[in-house]
Amino acid sequence: MSILAVGSIAFDTISTPSGRVENILGGSCTYFALSASYFTDVRVVAVVGDDFTAENESVLKKCGIDTRGIERAKGKTFRWGGHYLDNLNEAKTDFTELNVFQEFNPRVPAEFKDSKFLFLGNIQPSLQTAVCREMGSSKLIGGDTMNYWIQSARAELLETLKLVNVLLINDGEVKMLAEEKSLPRAALKVLAMGPKALVVKHGEYGATIFFREGAFGIGRHPFRAPTLPIDEVKDPTGAGDSFAGGFMGYIASQEEINREVLKRALFYGGVMGSFAVERFGTERLQSLTREEIEARFQIFRELTHLE
Amino acid sequence: MSILAVGSIAFDTISTPSGRVENILGGSCTYFALSASYFTDVRVVAVVGDDFTAENESVLKKCGIDTRGIERAKGKTFRWGGHYLDNLNEAKTDFTELNVFQEFNPRVPAEFKDSKFLFLGNIQPSLQTAVCREMGSSKLIGGDTMNYWIQSARAELLETLKLVNVLLINDGEVKMLAEEKSLPRAALKVLAMGPKALVVKHGEYGATIFFREGAFGIGRHPFRAPTLPIDEVKDPTGAGDSFAGGFMGYIASQEEINREVLKRALFYGGVMGSFAVERFGTERLQSLTREEIEARFQIFRELTHLE
Repeated sequence: MSILAVGSIAFDTISTPSGRVENILGGSCTYFALSASYFTDVRVVAVVGDDFTAENESVLKKCGIDTRGIERAKGKTFRWGGHYLDNLNEAKTDFTELNVFQEFNPRVPAEFKDSKFLFLGNIQPSLQTAVCREMGSSKLIGGDTMNYWIQSARAELLETLKLVNVLLINDGEVKMLAEEKSLPRAALKVLAMGPKALVVKHGEYGATIFFREGAFGIGRHPFRAPTLPIDEVKDPTGAGDSFAGGFMGYIASQEEINREVLKRALFYGGVMGSFAVERFGTERLQSLTREEIEARFQIFRELTHLE
Repeated sequence: MSILAVGSIAFDTISTPSGRVENILGGSCTYFALSASYFTDVRVVAVVGDDFTAENESVLKKCGIDTRGIERAKGKTFRWGGHYLDNLNEAKTDFTELNVFQEFNPRVPAEFKDSKFLFLGNIQPSLQTAVCREMGSSKLIGGDTMNYWIQSARAELLETLKLVNVLLINDGEVKMLAEEKSLPRAALKVLAMGPKALVVKHGEYGATIFFREGAFGIGRHPFRAPTLPIDEVKDPTGAGDSFAGGFMGYIASQEEINREVLKRALFYGGVMGSFAVERFGTERLQSLTREEIEARFQIFRELTHLE
């Protein structure tokens, strides 16, 4: 079933211990869409400027992504610069140029409104809410946010969370959102804000999914999927969105949403995140095969599987 | 089969967000021994002062631990004070009073020399080496160390590592010891220093075991065990030693050392660490039952188990 992804398309300038790249294609929507495209049909809604070339667009199109929802505005595309020189787990922002993204007002094309799955990338919470309202009835709405919105747009974010079914954020964001230091307690508080499930991303250690009592007709026990310790993380940018793409993409490819599907989805999320960080930008996500994905899924499964 | 544990016995003064305790029984040897005692026979070699009471000793004896290797020296027992007020994952030391521990020169009683398993708690590396040399042929030697020794006694530590079969340390210590930021590469470097296996403890995220090629007749693929996200971490002190006790204790209780045993041992390590942090000091480790341990093992297994 189709997924509609709403978020940013950006040009990123990134420094890591492995090197430096300038103005390469990035953004939450891009990473999510490329990752999810290995599992299901993906449509995107985003905004770009005059500097977004046909070549940039072809990166998405080659993976079968429907780009008709990309709005072209006058000006430059969103640009972000950051580095991970001290710590691969935490980006330090060098600059943010919102450009056309500043006036982004996502509009869902009529032909996208039947999308059964919706992913709300990390944008202003009130825009996330507006997109939900524009859509018909989705089967599942996934969403991301970040510390900036938790602090500066809490009221709007709480409105969005009433509409989001699965929230995917990291440990620090969960604790900040819940104002609670214990992760399981923080998870309970976040689930009480609306989502049926909360996926907490632990970076190199994997992710844990917590369920609201009775959500998806399954029990409350959390589930945790590891990631593979890979030899060299070249560029951590986009790992979280790639995770979300694998997670949502796998779910959208299945007949029903049950505990086993959500567990496997968590593993696929980790698989896609681990591929993303192997090269700079979206390079690795552009050239994967389903066989490579399945092979890594098996490795992850073996990594924690007791006989 | 019996395990001999060599390390510290201490009186700890600890502050955490859950409260404060003063001069409670602690030390690497104490946590390790209590944890391992649920799986196999445990003997301890340590030093205490005049202030170590019969009541203190009975905590160990009640769990069947052989305390004949505890040396009583003139003076006070080792005392440590620390807090976890800002971050439950990292102890900040308030004070260290080595007292009788300063002159600790561990001697293995003749009746302990047939111990098939040996655990070297976090003490001066040259003392760890001396203990190995005093012992006959052990089936397996496990060891711990810390950043302090890695920095201040590197040469001695490298000698110890030639004798240690399984080294159990945390992420930061592995990277510091290997002088390498990538964990899998750092693990390879540490394994080249001597150990057949390296257990990297990830705190609340579990642990990963890396194997030297051909070690224990098994492949090189790492294995990762999660821990349970528990509601409230009361006191993280001793979690790592309790992990080591569960890990080594389970191995010592098995007929042979193979991949499946080491995988399960990693899960049991996590189980014992998770119990330890539920209460202050060793309180929880003093009153466990094997049934509680098995029940939590099953929960951990389910936490990551795909059908």
